[in-house]
Amino acid sequence: MNVQEVIDRVLLDSCGGRKLEKTCDVLISGEPDMEVKGIVTSFMATVDVIREAIAVGANMIITHEPTYYTGFDELEWLRKDPVYLAKQKLIEDHGIAIWRYHDHMHLANTDRIYDGLIKELGWESNRIDQSSPWCYEIEKTTLVDLASFFLQKLSMNVLRIVGNPDMTCSRIGILVGGGSLGLGREQMPMELMRDKELDVMICGEITEWTLCAYINDAAMLGFHKGMLIVGHERTEEWGMKHMAEWLRKLVDGIPVTFVDAKEPFRYL
Amino acid sequence: MNVQEVIDRVLLDSCGGRKLEKTCDVLISGEPDMEVKGIVTSFMATVDVIREAIAVGANMIITHEPTYYTGFDELEWLRKDPVYLAKQKLIEDHGIAIWRYHDHMHLANTDRIYDGLIKELGWESNRIDQSSPWCYEIEKTTLVDLASFFLQKLSMNVLRIVGNPDMTCSRIGILVGGGSLGLGREQMPMELMRDKELDVMICGEITEWTLCAYINDAAMLGFHKGMLIVGHERTEEWGMKHMAEWLRKLVDGIPVTFVDAKEPFRYL
Repeated sequence: MNVQEVIDRVLLDSCGGRKLEKTCDVLISGEPDMEVKGIVTSFMATVDVIREAIAVGANMIITHEPTYYTGFDELEWLRKDPVYLAKQKLIEDHGIAIWRYHDHMHLANTDRIYDGLIKELGWESNRIDQSSPWCYEIEKTTLVDLASFFLQKLSMNVLRIVGNPDMTCSRIGILVGGGSLGLGREQMPMELMRDKELDVMICGEITEWTLCAYINDAAMLGFHKGMLIVGHERTEEWGMKHMAEWLRKLVDGIPVTFVDAKEPFRYL
Repeated sequence: MNVQEVIDRVLLDSCGGRKLEKTCDVLISGEPDMEVKGIVTSFMATVDVIREAIAVGANMIITHEPTYYTGFDELEWLRKDPVYLAKQKLIEDHGIAIWRYHDHMHLANTDRIYDGLIKELGWESNRIDQSSPWCYEIEKTTLVDLASFFLQKLSMNVLRIVGNPDMTCSRIGILVGGGSLGLGREQMPMELMRDKELDVMICGEITEWTLCAYINDAAMLGFHKGMLIVGHERTEEWGMKHMAEWLRKLVDGIPVTFVDAKEPFRYL
Protein backbone atom coordinates (compact mmCIF):
# COMPACT_ATOMS: atom_id res chain seq x y z
CA MET A 1 0.00 0.00 0.00
CA ASN A 2 1.42 3.41 -0.86
CA VAL A 3 1.07 6.80 0.80
CA GLN A 4 -1.71 7.98 -1.55
CA GLU A 5 -3.75 4.85 -0.93
CA VAL A 6 -3.52 5.39 2.85
CA ILE A 7 -4.64 9.00 2.40
CA ASP A 8 -7.52 8.01 0.13
CA ARG A 9 -8.78 5.38 2.56
CA VAL A 10 -8.67 7.84 5.46
CA LEU A 11 -10.57 10.46 3.45
CA LEU A 12 -13.12 7.92 2.23
CA ASP A 13 -13.68 6.60 5.74
CA SER A 14 -13.97 10.01 7.40
CA CYS A 15 -15.65 12.18 4.74
CA GLY A 16 -17.02 9.70 2.19
CA GLY A 17 -14.20 10.75 -0.11
CA ARG A 18 -15.20 14.43 -0.08
CA LYS A 19 -12.10 16.53 -0.66
CA LEU A 20 -11.80 20.21 0.23
CA GLU A 21 -10.32 22.44 -2.44
CA LYS A 22 -8.59 24.84 -0.10
CA THR A 23 -7.07 22.89 2.77
CA CYS A 24 -3.94 22.54 4.86
CA ASP A 25 -4.26 18.76 4.51
CA VAL A 26 -1.36 18.18 2.13
CA LEU A 27 1.66 15.94 1.84
CA ILE A 28 4.40 17.84 3.71
CA SER A 29 7.20 15.42 2.80
CA GLY A 30 7.63 12.22 0.79
CA GLU A 31 5.93 11.03 -2.40
CA PRO A 32 2.42 9.66 -2.99
CA ASP A 33 3.77 6.43 -4.45
CA MET A 34 6.10 5.56 -1.52
CA GLU A 35 5.41 2.10 -0.12
CA VAL A 36 4.24 2.46 3.50
CA LYS A 37 6.01 0.22 6.02
CA GLY A 38 4.50 1.65 9.18
CA ILE A 39 2.37 4.63 10.22
CA VAL A 40 2.63 6.91 13.22
CA THR A 41 -0.28 9.17 14.24
CA SER A 42 0.42 12.22 16.41
CA PHE A 43 -0.84 15.71 17.22
CA MET A 44 2.33 17.14 15.67
CA ALA A 45 5.35 15.77 13.81
CA THR A 46 7.85 17.26 16.24
CA VAL A 47 11.50 16.20 16.00
CA ASP A 48 10.97 13.75 18.88
CA VAL A 49 7.88 12.28 17.19
CA ILE A 50 9.86 11.82 13.97
CA ARG A 51 12.66 10.10 15.91
CA GLU A 52 10.14 7.80 17.57
CA ALA A 53 8.64 6.98 14.17
CA ILE A 54 12.11 6.05 12.91
CA ALA A 55 12.67 3.94 16.04
CA VAL A 56 9.51 1.89 15.46
CA GLY A 57 10.27 1.47 11.76
CA ALA A 58 7.45 3.67 10.45
CA ASN A 59 7.95 5.76 7.30
CA MET A 60 4.67 7.69 7.31
CA ILE A 61 3.51 10.18 9.93
CA ILE A 62 -0.05 11.45 10.01
CA THR A 63 0.03 14.74 11.88
CA HIS A 64 -2.91 16.90 12.91
CA GLU A 65 -1.01 20.17 13.20
CA PRO A 66 1.67 21.89 11.10
CA THR A 67 5.19 20.52 10.76
CA TYR A 68 6.73 23.90 9.95
CA TYR A 69 5.32 26.44 12.39
CA THR A 70 2.57 28.25 10.47
CA GLY A 71 -1.04 27.33 9.79
CA PHE A 72 -0.36 26.47 6.17
CA ASP A 73 3.21 25.13 6.53
CA GLU A 74 4.56 28.00 4.43
CA LEU A 75 8.18 27.37 3.43
CA GLU A 76 9.37 30.54 1.72
CA TRP A 77 10.56 32.22 4.95
CA LEU A 78 12.28 29.03 6.08
CA ARG A 79 14.53 28.26 3.07
CA LYS A 80 17.71 29.19 4.96
CA ASP A 81 16.47 28.63 8.51
CA PRO A 82 18.83 26.31 10.44
CA VAL A 83 16.02 24.70 12.46
CA TYR A 84 14.04 23.98 9.31
CA LEU A 85 17.08 22.66 7.46
CA ALA A 86 18.03 20.30 10.30
CA LYS A 87 14.47 18.99 10.65
CA GLN A 88 14.06 18.56 6.92
CA LYS A 89 17.36 16.66 6.75
CA LEU A 90 16.18 14.28 9.48
CA ILE A 91 12.97 13.67 7.54
CA GLU A 92 14.74 13.17 4.19
CA ASP A 93 17.58 11.03 5.54
CA HIS A 94 15.02 8.55 6.84
CA GLY A 95 12.58 8.81 3.95
CA ILE A 96 9.59 9.82 6.06
CA ALA A 97 6.34 10.85 4.42
CA ILE A 98 4.37 13.34 6.50
CA TRP A 99 0.71 13.93 5.73
CA ARG A 100 -1.38 16.51 7.51
CA TYR A 101 -4.88 15.41 8.44
CA HIS A 102 -6.57 18.39 10.02
CA ASP A 103 -9.50 19.92 8.13
CA HIS A 104 -10.94 16.61 6.95
CA MET A 105 -10.61 15.17 10.45
CA HIS A 106 -12.73 17.97 11.92
CA LEU A 107 -15.17 17.75 8.98
CA ALA A 108 -15.68 13.99 9.27
CA ASN A 109 -19.18 12.56 9.75
CA THR A 110 -18.44 13.10 13.44
CA ASP A 111 -15.45 15.37 14.33
CA ARG A 112 -12.81 12.76 15.05
CA ILE A 113 -10.72 15.02 17.25
CA TYR A 114 -13.69 15.46 19.58
CA ASP A 115 -14.51 11.74 19.30
CA GLY A 116 -11.08 10.85 20.69
CA LEU A 117 -11.21 13.35 23.53
CA ILE A 118 -14.74 12.38 24.56
CA LYS A 119 -13.79 8.70 24.56
CA GLU A 120 -10.78 9.53 26.73
CA LEU A 121 -13.01 11.41 29.17
CA GLY A 122 -15.72 8.72 29.10
CA TRP A 123 -18.36 11.34 28.26
CA GLU A 124 -19.88 9.60 25.22
CA SER A 125 -23.35 9.55 26.78
CA ASN A 126 -23.19 13.04 28.23
CA ARG A 127 -23.60 15.04 25.04
CA ILE A 128 -26.42 17.62 25.34
CA ASP A 129 -27.01 18.27 21.66
CA GLN A 130 -26.47 15.34 19.28
CA SER A 131 -25.67 17.67 16.37
CA SER A 132 -22.71 19.35 18.11
CA PRO A 133 -19.71 18.06 20.07
CA TRP A 134 -19.44 21.25 22.15
CA CYS A 135 -21.82 20.75 25.15
CA TYR A 136 -22.03 18.10 27.84
CA GLU A 137 -24.07 17.53 30.98
CA ILE A 138 -22.30 15.68 33.79
CA GLU A 139 -23.07 14.82 37.39
CA LYS A 140 -22.82 17.89 39.60
CA THR A 141 -19.25 18.56 40.74
CA THR A 142 -17.07 21.51 41.74
CA LEU A 143 -14.78 23.43 39.40
CA VAL A 144 -11.70 22.30 41.31
CA ASP A 145 -12.81 18.65 41.20
CA LEU A 146 -13.47 18.99 37.48
CA ALA A 147 -9.96 20.39 37.10
CA SER A 148 -8.53 17.39 38.97
CA PHE A 149 -10.53 15.07 36.70
CA PHE A 150 -8.98 16.71 33.62
CA LEU A 151 -5.48 16.68 35.09
CA GLN A 152 -5.77 12.96 35.72
CA LYS A 153 -7.62 11.94 32.54
CA LEU A 154 -5.36 13.96 30.23
CA SER A 155 -2.07 13.20 32.05
CA MET A 156 -1.33 16.80 32.99
CA ASN A 157 0.61 18.26 35.92
CA VAL A 158 -0.73 21.81 35.72
CA LEU A 159 -3.63 23.59 34.09
CA ARG A 160 -5.03 27.09 34.37
CA ILE A 161 -8.36 27.87 35.99
CA VAL A 162 -10.61 30.95 35.98
CA GLY A 163 -13.48 31.33 38.43
CA ASN A 164 -14.30 30.24 41.97
CA PRO A 165 -12.79 26.75 42.50
CA ASP A 166 -15.67 25.79 44.81
CA MET A 167 -18.49 26.65 42.41
CA THR A 168 -20.69 23.73 41.42
CA CYS A 169 -21.09 22.88 37.76
CA SER A 170 -22.80 20.35 35.54
CA ARG A 171 -23.17 21.91 32.08
CA ILE A 172 -19.76 21.87 30.44
CA GLY A 173 -18.65 23.29 27.10
CA ILE A 174 -15.57 22.06 25.27
CA LEU A 175 -13.81 23.97 22.49
CA VAL A 176 -10.69 22.08 21.49
CA GLY A 177 -7.52 23.32 19.81
CA GLY A 178 -7.85 26.69 18.13
CA GLY A 179 -11.67 26.49 18.30
CA SER A 180 -11.69 28.29 21.65
CA LEU A 181 -10.37 31.40 19.85
CA GLY A 182 -13.86 31.55 18.31
CA LEU A 183 -13.36 30.27 14.74
CA GLY A 184 -13.14 33.79 13.37
CA ARG A 185 -15.57 35.38 15.83
CA GLU A 186 -13.98 36.40 19.15
CA GLN A 187 -17.29 36.40 21.02
CA MET A 188 -18.39 32.93 19.86
CA PRO A 189 -17.23 31.05 23.01
CA MET A 190 -19.04 33.57 25.24
CA GLU A 191 -22.21 33.43 23.16
CA LEU A 192 -22.08 29.65 23.35
CA MET A 193 -21.72 29.74 27.14
CA ARG A 194 -24.64 32.12 27.47
CA ASP A 195 -26.95 30.55 24.90
CA LYS A 196 -26.40 26.98 26.12
CA GLU A 197 -26.35 28.02 29.79
CA LEU A 198 -22.95 26.45 30.34
CA ASP A 199 -21.28 26.64 33.74
CA VAL A 200 -17.73 25.89 32.60
CA MET A 201 -15.81 26.14 29.34
CA ILE A 202 -12.89 23.80 28.65
CA CYS A 203 -10.46 25.46 26.25
CA GLY A 204 -7.59 24.81 23.92
CA GLU A 205 -5.93 28.06 22.82
CA ILE A 206 -6.96 31.29 24.56
CA THR A 207 -6.33 35.01 24.50
CA GLU A 208 -6.49 36.90 27.78
CA TRP A 209 -8.78 39.70 26.57
CA THR A 210 -11.72 37.56 25.41
CA LEU A 211 -13.25 34.55 27.19
CA CYS A 212 -10.75 34.71 30.10
CA ALA A 213 -11.78 38.29 30.81
CA TYR A 214 -15.48 37.48 30.49
CA ILE A 215 -15.35 34.56 32.93
CA ASN A 216 -13.13 36.50 35.29
CA ASP A 217 -15.62 39.38 35.41
CA ALA A 218 -18.53 36.95 35.71
CA ALA A 219 -16.90 35.27 38.71
CA MET A 220 -16.15 38.67 40.34
CA LEU A 221 -19.82 39.57 39.91
CA GLY A 222 -20.92 36.34 41.62
CA PHE A 223 -22.06 34.41 38.54
CA HIS A 224 -21.28 30.71 38.66
CA LYS A 225 -19.03 30.65 35.62
CA GLY A 226 -15.68 28.94 35.30
CA MET A 227 -13.06 27.99 32.76
CA LEU A 228 -10.32 25.40 32.49
CA ILE A 229 -7.46 26.09 30.10
CA VAL A 230 -6.22 22.69 29.01
CA GLY A 231 -4.37 23.85 25.91
CA HIS A 232 -4.26 23.00 22.23
CA GLU A 233 -2.22 19.85 22.31
CA ARG A 234 -3.82 18.35 25.43
CA THR A 235 -7.35 18.79 24.00
CA GLU A 236 -6.49 17.41 20.54
CA GLU A 237 -3.86 14.69 21.09
CA TRP A 238 -6.56 12.14 21.96
CA GLY A 239 -8.14 12.29 18.54
CA MET A 240 -4.80 11.12 17.13
CA LYS A 241 -4.49 8.44 19.81
CA HIS A 242 -7.85 6.98 18.92
CA MET A 243 -7.11 7.41 15.21
CA ALA A 244 -4.48 4.70 15.54
CA GLU A 245 -7.30 2.27 16.43
CA TRP A 246 -9.65 3.07 13.55
CA LEU A 247 -6.83 3.50 11.05
CA ARG A 248 -5.52 -0.01 11.79
CA LYS A 249 -8.72 -1.46 10.30
CA LEU A 250 -8.19 0.40 7.03
CA VAL A 251 -4.57 -0.34 6.13
CA ASP A 252 -4.32 -4.10 5.57
CA GLY A 253 -1.97 -4.96 8.42
CA ILE A 254 0.47 -2.05 8.16
CA PRO A 255 1.60 -1.37 11.76
CA VAL A 256 0.05 1.80 13.20
CA THR A 257 1.55 3.43 16.30
CA PHE A 258 0.30 6.45 18.22
CA VAL A 259 3.06 8.73 19.51
CA ASP A 260 2.19 11.40 22.07
CA ALA A 261 3.68 14.72 20.89
CA LYS A 262 3.30 16.10 24.44
CA GLU A 263 2.78 19.73 25.46
CA PRO A 264 5.44 22.01 23.91
CA PHE A 265 6.08 23.79 27.21
CA ARG A 266 6.59 22.95 30.85
CA TYR A 267 5.19 24.84 33.83
CA LEU A 268 7.87 26.22 36.10
CA MET B 1 -10.29 69.21 34.54
CA ASN B 2 -12.68 67.05 32.56
CA VAL B 3 -12.32 63.65 30.92
CA GLN B 4 -11.61 65.06 27.45
CA GLU B 5 -8.87 67.32 28.81
CA VAL B 6 -7.17 64.35 30.47
CA ILE B 7 -7.35 62.39 27.20
CA ASP B 8 -6.00 65.32 25.18
CA ARG B 9 -3.05 65.81 27.52
CA VAL B 10 -2.18 62.11 27.39
CA LEU B 11 -2.33 62.08 23.59
CA LEU B 12 -0.32 65.29 23.32
CA ASP B 13 2.33 63.98 25.70
CA SER B 14 2.64 60.56 24.10
CA CYS B 15 2.04 61.23 20.39
CA GLY B 16 2.36 64.99 20.04
CA GLY B 17 -1.40 65.14 19.64
CA ARG B 18 -1.42 62.78 16.66
CA LYS B 19 -4.75 60.97 16.58
CA LEU B 20 -5.38 57.73 14.73
CA GLU B 21 -8.53 57.60 12.64
CA LYS B 22 -9.26 53.92 13.14
CA THR B 23 -8.50 53.02 16.74
CA CYS B 24 -9.83 51.10 19.70
CA ASP B 25 -8.86 54.06 21.91
CA VAL B 26 -12.35 55.36 22.62
CA LEU B 27 -14.40 56.40 25.61
CA ILE B 28 -16.09 53.18 26.75
CA SER B 29 -18.28 54.81 29.41
CA GLY B 30 -18.92 58.30 30.76
CA GLU B 31 -18.98 61.68 29.03
CA PRO B 32 -16.13 63.89 27.78
CA ASP B 33 -17.24 66.79 29.94
CA MET B 34 -17.34 64.88 33.24
CA GLU B 35 -15.22 66.50 35.93
CA VAL B 36 -12.41 64.10 36.91
CA LYS B 37 -11.96 63.54 40.65
CA GLY B 38 -9.39 60.78 40.49
CA ILE B 39 -7.82 58.50 37.88
CA VAL B 40 -6.97 54.80 38.01
CA THR B 41 -4.60 53.24 35.46
CA SER B 42 -4.72 49.49 34.89
CA PHE B 43 -4.10 46.81 32.28
CA MET B 44 -7.84 46.09 32.22
CA ALA B 45 -10.96 47.58 33.80
CA THR B 46 -12.05 44.30 35.36
CA VAL B 47 -14.88 44.32 37.90
CA ASP B 48 -12.33 44.24 40.74
CA VAL B 49 -10.37 47.12 39.23
CA ILE B 50 -13.59 49.15 38.95
CA ARG B 51 -14.42 48.37 42.59
CA GLU B 52 -10.94 49.46 43.63
CA ALA B 53 -11.34 52.70 41.65
CA ILE B 54 -14.59 53.36 43.49
CA ALA B 55 -12.88 52.60 46.82
CA VAL B 56 -10.15 55.18 46.21
CA GLY B 57 -12.64 57.81 45.02
CA ALA B 58 -11.58 57.80 41.36
CA ASN B 59 -14.16 58.34 38.61
CA MET B 60 -11.96 57.78 35.57
CA ILE B 61 -10.21 54.55 34.61
CA ILE B 62 -7.58 54.46 31.88
CA THR B 63 -7.43 50.88 30.66
CA HIS B 64 -5.00 49.37 28.16
CA GLU B 65 -7.18 46.45 27.13
CA PRO B 66 -10.89 46.03 26.33
CA THR B 67 -13.58 46.36 28.96
CA TYR B 68 -16.07 44.18 27.08
CA TYR B 69 -14.23 41.09 25.86
CA THR B 70 -13.47 41.78 22.20
CA GLY B 71 -10.69 43.76 20.55
CA PHE B 72 -12.98 46.64 19.65
CA ASP B 73 -15.34 46.48 22.63
CA GLU B 74 -18.26 45.55 20.35
CA LEU B 75 -21.57 45.79 22.20
CA GLU B 76 -24.22 44.45 19.82
CA TRP B 77 -23.84 40.83 20.96
CA LEU B 78 -23.89 41.86 24.62
CA ARG B 79 -27.12 43.88 24.80
CA LYS B 80 -28.93 41.19 26.84
CA ASP B 81 -25.89 39.51 28.36
CA PRO B 82 -26.22 39.26 32.18
CA VAL B 83 -22.47 39.70 32.79
CA TYR B 84 -22.38 42.81 30.61
CA LEU B 85 -25.54 44.25 32.18
CA ALA B 86 -24.21 43.75 35.73
CA LYS B 87 -20.81 45.28 34.89
CA GLN B 88 -22.37 48.19 33.04
CA LYS B 89 -24.70 48.85 36.02
CA LEU B 90 -21.72 48.96 38.38
CA ILE B 91 -20.00 51.46 36.09
CA GLU B 92 -23.11 53.64 35.66
CA ASP B 93 -24.17 53.55 39.31
CA HIS B 94 -20.81 55.01 40.26
CA GLY B 95 -20.43 57.38 37.31
CA ILE B 96 -17.13 55.95 36.13
CA ALA B 97 -15.61 57.12 32.84
CA ILE B 98 -13.49 54.44 31.17
CA TRP B 99 -11.09 55.43 28.43
CA ARG B 100 -9.05 52.93 26.48
CA TYR B 101 -5.44 53.90 25.83
CA HIS B 102 -3.95 51.17 23.72
CA ASP B 103 -2.95 52.07 20.16
CA HIS B 104 -1.63 55.52 21.04
CA MET B 105 0.33 54.09 23.97
CA HIS B 106 2.16 51.65 21.70
CA LEU B 107 2.61 54.38 19.06
CA ALA B 108 4.08 56.92 21.47
CA ASN B 109 7.52 58.45 20.80
CA THR B 110 8.75 55.38 22.70
CA ASP B 111 6.27 52.50 23.22
CA ARG B 112 5.16 53.20 26.77
CA ILE B 113 4.09 49.64 27.47
CA TYR B 114 7.64 48.47 26.78
CA ASP B 115 9.03 51.45 28.70
CA GLY B 116 7.21 50.31 31.85
CA LEU B 117 8.25 46.67 31.53
CA ILE B 118 11.89 47.50 30.83
CA LYS B 119 11.98 49.85 33.82
CA GLU B 120 10.51 47.09 35.98
CA LEU B 121 13.18 44.66 34.75
CA GLY B 122 15.97 47.23 35.07
CA TRP B 123 17.04 46.59 31.47
CA GLU B 124 17.06 50.23 30.27
CA SER B 125 20.73 50.05 29.28
CA ASN B 126 20.53 46.57 27.73
CA ARG B 127 18.69 47.43 24.52
CA ILE B 128 20.53 46.10 21.45
CA ASP B 129 18.88 48.28 18.81
CA GLN B 130 17.87 51.77 19.85
CA SER B 131 15.12 51.93 17.23
CA SER B 132 13.23 48.89 18.55
CA PRO B 133 12.16 47.74 22.04
CA TRP B 134 12.31 44.05 21.10
CA CYS B 135 15.93 42.95 21.67
CA TYR B 136 18.20 43.03 24.73
CA GLU B 137 21.65 41.78 25.63
CA ILE B 138 22.17 40.76 29.24
CA GLU B 139 24.92 39.11 31.25
CA LYS B 140 25.17 35.41 30.44
CA THR B 141 22.71 33.34 32.47
CA THR B 142 20.78 30.08 32.15
CA LEU B 143 17.22 29.77 30.89
CA VAL B 144 16.00 28.54 34.27
CA ASP B 145 17.71 31.42 36.09
CA LEU B 146 16.19 33.86 33.62
CA ALA B 147 12.80 32.29 34.36
CA SER B 148 13.37 32.79 38.11
CA PHE B 149 14.33 36.41 37.44
CA PHE B 150 11.04 36.99 35.59
CA LEU B 151 8.99 35.18 38.23
CA GLN B 152 10.46 37.41 40.90
CA LYS B 153 10.48 40.71 39.00
CA LEU B 154 6.94 40.32 37.66
CA SER B 155 5.43 38.84 40.85
CA MET B 156 4.46 35.52 39.31
CA ASN B 157 4.12 32.06 40.84
CA VAL B 158 4.26 30.05 37.64
CA LEU B 159 5.31 30.60 34.05
CA ARG B 160 5.75 28.29 31.09
CA ILE B 161 9.11 27.45 29.61
CA VAL B 162 10.21 25.84 26.31
CA GLY B 163 13.76 24.60 25.77
CA ASN B 164 16.56 23.17 27.87
CA PRO B 165 16.46 24.89 31.29
CA ASP B 166 20.26 24.68 31.59
CA MET B 167 21.07 26.38 28.26
CA THR B 168 23.01 29.61 28.55
CA CYS B 169 21.58 32.77 27.06
CA SER B 170 22.40 36.44 26.73
CA ARG B 171 20.46 37.77 23.71
CA ILE B 172 16.83 38.10 24.73
CA GLY B 173 13.80 39.09 22.67
CA ILE B 174 10.63 40.46 24.21
CA LEU B 175 7.26 40.58 22.46
CA VAL B 176 4.65 41.82 24.90
CA GLY B 177 0.87 41.33 24.89
CA GLY B 178 -0.56 40.18 21.58
CA GLY B 179 2.67 41.12 19.77
CA SER B 180 4.05 37.63 20.25
CA LEU B 181 1.29 36.36 17.94
CA GLY B 182 3.25 38.12 15.19
CA LEU B 183 1.25 41.30 14.51
CA GLY B 184 -0.50 39.73 11.53
CA ARG B 185 2.39 37.51 10.42
CA GLU B 186 2.64 34.18 12.27
CA GLN B 187 6.32 33.73 11.45
CA MET B 188 7.43 37.19 12.62
CA PRO B 189 8.63 36.10 16.11
CA MET B 190 10.67 33.28 14.58
CA GLU B 191 12.16 35.52 11.91
CA LEU B 192 13.07 38.01 14.63
CA MET B 193 14.79 35.31 16.69
CA ARG B 194 16.76 34.11 13.70
CA ASP B 195 17.63 37.50 12.19
CA LYS B 196 18.69 39.02 15.54
CA GLU B 197 20.36 35.82 16.72
CA LEU B 198 18.28 35.73 19.89
CA ASP B 199 18.69 32.90 22.39
CA VAL B 200 15.39 33.34 24.20
CA MET B 201 12.04 34.91 23.40
CA ILE B 202 9.86 36.34 26.19
CA CYS B 203 6.20 36.21 25.16
CA GLY B 204 2.78 37.54 25.95
CA GLU B 205 0.08 35.62 24.09
CA ILE B 206 1.06 32.44 22.24
CA THR B 207 -0.36 29.72 20.04
CA GLU B 208 1.06 26.24 20.34
CA TRP B 209 1.61 25.66 16.62
CA THR B 210 3.89 28.62 15.90
CA LEU B 211 6.80 29.90 18.01
CA CYS B 212 6.29 27.21 20.72
CA ALA B 213 6.65 24.47 18.12
CA TYR B 214 9.69 26.13 16.52
CA ILE B 215 11.57 26.51 19.80
CA ASN B 216 10.56 23.04 20.89
CA ASP B 217 11.95 21.53 17.68
CA ALA B 218 15.06 23.72 17.91
CA ALA B 219 15.74 22.46 21.45
CA MET B 220 15.18 18.83 20.39
CA LEU B 221 17.73 19.36 17.60
CA GLY B 222 20.28 20.73 20.06
CA PHE B 223 20.04 24.42 19.18
CA HIS B 224 20.36 26.74 22.15
CA LYS B 225 16.92 28.30 21.83
CA GLY B 226 14.43 28.92 24.62
CA MET B 227 11.17 30.66 25.37
CA LEU B 228 9.43 32.00 28.44
CA ILE B 229 5.67 32.45 28.30
CA VAL B 230 4.91 35.27 30.69
CA GLY B 231 1.46 36.10 29.32
CA HIS B 232 -0.39 39.15 28.07
CA GLU B 233 -1.26 40.82 31.33
CA ARG B 234 2.07 40.15 33.08
CA THR B 235 4.05 41.63 30.17
CA GLU B 236 1.86 44.73 29.80
CA GLU B 237 0.67 45.63 33.32
CA TRP B 238 3.93 47.47 34.03
CA GLY B 239 3.33 50.05 31.35
CA MET B 240 0.16 51.02 33.20
CA LYS B 241 1.97 51.01 36.55
CA HIS B 242 4.58 53.44 35.27
CA MET B 243 1.89 55.47 33.50
CA ALA B 244 0.56 56.52 36.90
CA GLU B 245 3.90 58.29 37.47
CA TRP B 246 4.10 60.24 34.22
CA LEU B 247 0.36 60.94 34.16
CA ARG B 248 0.54 62.59 37.60
CA LYS B 249 2.66 65.37 36.12
CA LEU B 250 0.05 66.14 33.46
CA VAL B 251 -3.19 66.38 35.44
CA ASP B 252 -2.82 69.33 37.81
CA GLY B 253 -2.98 67.46 41.11
CA ILE B 254 -5.77 65.02 40.32
CA PRO B 255 -4.92 61.84 42.30
CA VAL B 256 -3.65 59.02 40.07
CA THR B 257 -3.60 55.44 41.35
CA PHE B 258 -2.28 52.33 39.64
CA VAL B 259 -4.37 49.20 40.23
CA ASP B 260 -2.94 45.82 39.26
CA ALA B 261 -5.57 43.93 37.22
CA LYS B 262 -3.69 40.68 37.89
CA GLU B 263 -3.59 37.59 35.68
CA PRO B 264 -7.11 36.41 34.78
CA PHE B 265 -6.30 32.79 35.62
CA ARG B 266 -4.54 30.80 38.31
CA TYR B 267 -2.29 27.81 37.80
CA LEU B 268 -3.57 24.65 39.46
